[in-house]
Amino acid sequence: MPELRVGIYPGTFDPVTNGHLDVIARAARLVDRLVVGVAINAGKGPLFPLDERVELVKAETDRIAAEVGSEVQVVPFTGLLVEFARQYGAKMIIRGLRAVSDFDYEFQMAGMNHRLAPDVETVFLMASETNQFISSRFVKEVATLGGDVSSFVPPLTLDRTLARVRSRKEAAE
Amino acid sequence: MPELRVGIYPGTFDPVTNGHLDVIARAARLVDRLVVGVAINAGKGPLFPLDERVELVKAETDRIAAEVGSEVQVVPFTGLLVEFARQYGAKMIIRGLRAVSDFDYEFQMAGMNHRLAPDVETVFLMASETNQFISSRFVKEVATLGGDVSSFVPPLTLDRTLARVRSRKEAAE
Amino acid sequence: MPELRVGIYPGTFDPVTNGHLDVIARAARLVDRLVVGVAINAGKGPLFPLDERVELVKAETDRIAAEVGSEVQVVPFTGLLVEFARQYGAKMIIRGLRAVSDFDYEFQMAGMNHRLAPDVETVFLMASETNQFISSRFVKEVATLGGDVSSFVPPLTLDRTLARVRSRKEAAE
Amino acid sequence: MPELRVGIYPGTFDPVTNGHLDVIARAARLVDRLVVGVAINAGKGPLFPLDERVELVKAETDRIAAEVGSEVQVVPFTGLLVEFARQYGAKMIIRGLRAVSDFDYEFQMAGMNHRLAPDVETVFLMASETNQFISSRFVKEVATLGGDVSSFVPPLTLDRTLARVRSRKEAAE
Amino acid sequence: MPELRVGIYPGTFDPVTNGHLDVIARAARLVDRLVVGVAINAGKGPLFPLDERVELVKAETDRIAAEVGSEVQVVPFTGLLVEFARQYGAKMIIRGLRAVSDFDYEFQMAGMNHRLAPDVETVFLMASETNQFISSRFVKEVATLGGDVSSFVPPLTLDRTLARVRSRKEAAE
Amino acid sequence: MPELRVGIYPGTFDPVTNGHLDVIARAARLVDRLVVGVAINAGKGPLFPLDERVELVKAETDRIAAEVGSEVQVVPFTGLLVEFARQYGAKMIIRGLRAVSDFDYEFQMAGMNHRLAPDVETVFLMASETNQFISSRFVKEVATLGGDVSSFVPPLTLDRTLARVRSRKEAAE
Repeated sequence: MPELRVGIYPGTFDPVTNGHLDVIARAARLVDRLVVGVAINAGKGPLFPLDERVELVKAETDRIAAEVGSEVQVVPFTGLLVEFARQYGAKMIIRGLRAVSDFDYEFQMAGMNHRLAPDVETVFLMASETNQFISSRFVKEVATLGGDVSSFVPPLTLDRTLARVRSRKEAAE
Repeated sequence: MPELRVGIYPGTFDPVTNGHLDVIARAARLVDRLVVGVAINAGKGPLFPLDERVELVKAETDRIAAEVGSEVQVVPFTGLLVEFARQYGAKMIIRGLRAVSDFDYEFQMAGMNHRLAPDVETVFLMASETNQFISSRFVKEVATLGGDVSSFVPPLTLDRTLARVRSRKEAAE
Repeated sequence: MPELRVGIYPGTFDPVTNGHLDVIARAARLVDRLVVGVAINAGKGPLFPLDERVELVKAETDRIAAEVGSEVQVVPFTGLLVEFARQYGAKMIIRGLRAVSDFDYEFQMAGMNHRLAPDVETVFLMASETNQFISSRFVKEVATLGGDVSSFVPPLTLDRTLARVRSRKEAAE
Repeated sequence: MPELRVGIYPGTFDPVTNGHLDVIARAARLVDRLVVGVAINAGKGPLFPLDERVELVKAETDRIAAEVGSEVQVVPFTGLLVEFARQYGAKMIIRGLRAVSDFDYEFQMAGMNHRLAPDVETVFLMASETNQFISSRFVKEVATLGGDVSSFVPPLTLDRTLARVRSRKEAAE
Repeated sequence: MPELRVGIYPGTFDPVTNGHLDVIARAARLVDRLVVGVAINAGKGPLFPLDERVELVKAETDRIAAEVGSEVQVVPFTGLLVEFARQYGAKMIIRGLRAVSDFDYEFQMAGMNHRLAPDVETVFLMASETNQFISSRFVKEVATLGGDVSSFVPPLTLDRTLARVRSRKEAAE
Repeated sequence: MPELRVGIYPGTFDPVTNGHLDVIARAARLVDRLVVGVAINAGKGPLFPLDERVELVKAETDRIAAEVGSEVQVVPFTGLLVEFARQYGAKMIIRGLRAVSDFDYEFQMAGMNHRLAPDVETVFLMASETNQFISSRFVKEVATLGGDVSSFVPPLTLDRTLARVRSRKEAAE
């Protein structure tokens, strides 16, 4: 009988973008259970608190799970990624690659993780063509400058992003 | 009940290297059945004929399959990679990436294949640190110049490579 | 009174793809007259003879010129690119960049051309997201293997490509 | 009658370097009017305030405009780059590329801007060979360490940079 | 009589890794005297103070010097790298390259330094295969998250890193 | 007493360019004896026969050796590069890097050679800014198309290249 395949898709998701959701849908097809790990990322001063980032990812994954027919969990995580993977019984860490943008960092992180946990494999999916240019960072920058980001993030995330950006501006005044 | 997961690992394997075998072992852990597809590659004037390339890959994969506990098949293929994947019920095409060496070509091929068959996903594994520098091309070049390639290919492949290189040289004289 | 702006878009166009046509349309907006230079490329054994490549590009450019409101000429060329540019009074050579695929070669060629003709500037346009993965080479490879390339080339080029590929195969049998 | 061609060359110019000036001169030849947009860049703690950065760019552009025969304006800007371009009637955003250093970021920004404003085209000029290694960041670092940056920036900018660096050091003591 | 060859290997070494030590051993073979320059790096908030970073590098270099048969000095430095090189009579600055990770920055710094001091040459060594993925940054990140970094740094550095990480955490609570 | 330092600078030199000569001059400063190894390169159909390539490199190196004060030898070589290095007592193989153009291939070759001969170190010099765009391949292409390559190669090589290109054309007619 085939083994239950579990994969981890880690990220900060500050906020989740259509690019992330595309990778989640494609990754979910490759495993029986996909665990989306939302990293706490204490250092960088995220736009959204951890629980809201988890909420916004969750808001989209039920639909994806139903479409794909795999189980999709969304959980916060802190600590070492390979420990998180082992804890959930995952043999696969899944990462998206946008052109060369992420290659170097990902290459080094995959190598490091392979040294820390040779039984956990990092696999990469290329970003789809329509999602090459989307990044959480650009979404925040463009939204802050008043640009239209409605084609880069799902509707609920859009509303929350605009609200957060607005209150940041008001706080700065 | 979990679905049977099938993956395709395509290549020319002219000849198979320890780098390929490392990817095969790691890929086999990610699926229930791994199909190693040996491409005919009519154009490039390979060192080994197709059937011998299949034979040399097969010689190593029984051992890997036993270690990993997955099924590993080795089959020749010609024609379109995504058709080959569909024919074997594979949802995953697995490719190894050595540093940036292969990135651009792979990125384009993955994008093209995604357009041709959106249901087949290309996933990438980074080459292990000890296999970063190994390529079939270098193995052939170094062997032709009399260098020691015994740490780059398995023993049977080594013998056959040295024999092929020797008979090429004799034919050229 | 503004000067008449002339740009050159050189290439082999063997065959022209939707990626090329997208660059032609975008480049045409940047100048008053765009000269598409179809290079003879004697060395590589093209699928199409020069005159047919010119014909296939021309078949699409009238429509583009009308849409954009710029003049678009399609002419064969041989010899040095910067001489061709000067002959047509062009100050701008326009090149498309697909991710990093073309960067290195283009970077060197632009540098060399700048040394040969400092008055002719090479400018680069990024390929659109839907055209990142299209290349004449892949179109020919996929068509030869029987894959569907109808979303990568315009209709007339598709027919001609399929016919050429078919007669090549018959000749090889 | 040819249309009036307007281009935007955006940057932080903290401070303007000979590399920037080279791109300005070359870009000015490609359009009838070049608008150099000096970004406010509130976040990074620039060495020079916005008005002085505008002043230092302006100090050099009259000479360039006279040499090239195009109009060159220098204006501060804040907000979305594509809005700034539209406001000035520009169809072209011009960016310099130094080897691969800037490629990834630029590639993503161009893609994002194309999504936000398909009618505004981003074009890239390769840095000239003598300006490959010059960046505002290195100029500031080297000047702070007492190195000679006189071949990297124009004379007035040099004086101001040395003065700013000196007063920063005194403030830190 | 051959000239005395002096080389500089600069870095922050916060902390020194096995990757650094490998480059030191290989660089020491290329010169008669290798000066390891530990940069003060005031800006980044290093984990270790400068004197302790010097101490930890020194703790390993006596053994390397004995093995290689070259002289190895470890000295702190501040100020311009090319001035530091001249002060020690070095004609060679040695830098390690890990895949493309460091290429762009290094390329620009080498070009800048060549302009500042044409008599001092920057040479690059590729990181060994087993050290491709090691960086001081990852060592600190992984150690902070409780991961095992004992294969990435020498024993004394390991003890000190764990102690530093522990006291940082206690201070943060 | 310092050891005699020997370096190898291998290449095809078909033909030698000003870029090669710049690397030779800079490399010669790093060693006591520089051996320029001219590779036979049987496969590629070089423009110049091996002995003429050796002759053309030699014609320039006496001047360089005198200027630099190091010994410079020019010798043909065939076979494995690391064997050639050992035969000449060289511990250092020197390679030039032009931007990223050569990075991947060089990275792999250096890794392979390190496996074959850990006692021979490959070091890289960045091409000077004025030599970033020069390559033997471009020199031949441009000369064949009638472009002026006099700033890319030394005078004697220029004469010989033009003569070779002319007789190739006559032979083709």
